Amino acid sequence: MRLRDLGERGLISRIERAAAKVSGRSVVLGIGDDAALLRSRAGDDLVVSTDACVENVHFRFANESPRSIGRRALVANLSDLAAMGARPTGFVLALGAPGDVPVKVVDGLVAGLLHEAARHGCPLVGGNCSQAGEVSLAITALGAVRRGAALTRRGARAGDRVLVTGVLGAAALDRARAERRGRVRHVAEPRLRAGLALVRVREVGGCIDVSDGLEADLGHVLDAEGLAADLEPAALPMPRGFRRACAELDLEPLALALGGGEDYELVFTLRPQGPSAARLSRRLGVAVTEIGRVVSGRRPRPRGWRHFEV
Amino acid sequence: MRLRDLGERGLISRIERAAAKVSGRSVVLGIGDDAALLRSRAGDDLVVSTDACVENVHFRFANESPRSIGRRALVANLSDLAAMGARPTGFVLALGAPGDVPVKVVDGLVAGLLHEAARHGCPLVGGNCSQAGEVSLAITALGAVRRGAALTRRGARAGDRVLVTGVLGAAALDRARAERRGRVRHVAEPRLRAGLALVRVREVGGCIDVSDGLEADLGHVLDAEGLAADLEPAALPMPRGFRRACAELDLEPLALALGGGEDYELVFTLRPQGPSAARLSRRLGVAVTEIGRVVSGRRPRPRGWRHFEV
Repeated sequence: MRLRDLGERGLISRIERAAAKVSGRSVVLGIGDDAALLRSRAGDDLVVSTDACVENVHFRFANESPRSIGRRALVANLSDLAAMGARPTGFVLALGAPGDVPVKVVDGLVAGLLHEAARHGCPLVGGNCSQAGEVSLAITALGAVRRGAALTRRGARAGDRVLVTGVLGAAALDRARAERRGRVRHVAEPRLRAGLALVRVREVGGCIDVSDGLEADLGHVLDAEGLAADLEPAALPMPRGFRRACAELDLEPLALALGGGEDYELVFTLRPQGPSAARLSRRLGVAVTEIGRVVSGRRPRPRGWRHFEV
Repeated sequence: MRLRDLGERGLISRIERAAAKVSGRSVVLGIGDDAALLRSRAGDDLVVSTDACVENVHFRFANESPRSIGRRALVANLSDLAAMGARPTGFVLALGAPGDVPVKVVDGLVAGLLHEAARHGCPLVGGNCSQAGEVSLAITALGAVRRGAALTRRGARAGDRVLVTGVLGAAALDRARAERRGRVRHVAEPRLRAGLALVRVREVGGCIDVSDGLEADLGHVLDAEGLAADLEPAALPMPRGFRRACAELDLEPLALALGGGEDYELVFTLRPQGPSAARLSRRLGVAVTEIGRVVSGRRPRPRGWRHFEV
């Protein structure tokens, strides 16, 4: 069956039924009215992040399952909430698709979205479906953070230590593999728990998630305060077996770890007297590695993913 | 200059500069971080509406200015907030566009969005730009409403009166004109003030905005409670000179008023003892017309705009 056989109403009902399985305490009114209604704890600040995944730009059906595409689409948004230290409350989806897309493809996309939604307590509360020349998922995720406590890109100071959660380069390696032979399989983990814990670490300076590559994203944190950083390349945390896998594909591990996008780790600066990386690892529930230091002076322009330039 | 010459960063900076002219009291942090931060009055419920406008589906550059397209895109979302009785707090934009789109086209779209944003106090607080095969604007608008007070589609009862703000059919007539000769010119008025006033009228039953056509949208209100309505066709409020303009184009005025989309008026049901239409007109700041009555029994399936079926 194709989307045009289902019709917009049919499609919305189908998504609504699937979405109903993921509930959230904040949802007063979900899909099916003019808008969704959410209720936060009084005094919380509202965090809003939006991101789009477009066919043949951010994903290809030829080398990735719809379910994986859906999962990655929501993870990208949840990661932005994590970088602010927010607890997810729900998301809305604007789905674009040509009428001849098989319904099972949309089912797979939605299943992937809802898989991550259920894992992270972020229900689908509303959306919009429209015809389009290609498949696209524009997602807006909402979260809550204690009033005034959100982490932002600002706040780094010269002398701060630079730390990063998890490992870098896994997503870039997976994409490189998929381009040559096979399928995209890697779905990153949005560091929501780590973000919630970081909000309580008062020595944190600036924080961001690694969506475009460590160099580019740390660059935003540094630029926000007109600073630079000395990174220790040997310290960059990489996945197990990463160097060997890179060698097999004739890839440069450091380039992937510094420039590869979609790691969705958190990179942040910390005052010198802040907790050790080992102590932070325990508090954040994920490995934390110290990779360098913030220094004064402007940094050269970072590399990273850029749209519209290809 | 084309979008690809500007690059994603350049495009975002350009939109950011334009957006900075429209401020909002609720905005703690706007464009430029991982997410936006908004602060509501403690105890307010959060209203979230999302809608997409896609080139060659919802608009055509051949017969409409980018500015008008942008205005209509935001109005569609503001109208959903109005239908819930919410005060707008801000919106985010996921913009998709091919790299060869002239930058001045995007400037026009953004200018149109921000024109309505400024008029209605709804700042652009975040977004995302990505390459796509066609131009699309996926907007998520956020609003606030007093805890528990939002208007919804539910709540109609048999015996309720049916009322509508403003006039019906103007947008459909304008589209019909544009198809034959000329340009889309009509930009509807989101009934935000009326929605805010309706929240305080305790005799209101169900409420919705007329985005797909009166018959289809009132149908959602009726379906929500398993009811039907007797409408008085002669009572439907139409624009001045509407019948003559329809006759010139060989169009049926009633079909446009009942089935034409994008009027963005509010249609709602009201308990029999509620205020008169004249009294409501004064309270809502816009003409209000009584057009029928809710009756028991199921209604036949409404007509309306449907995607994926063309």
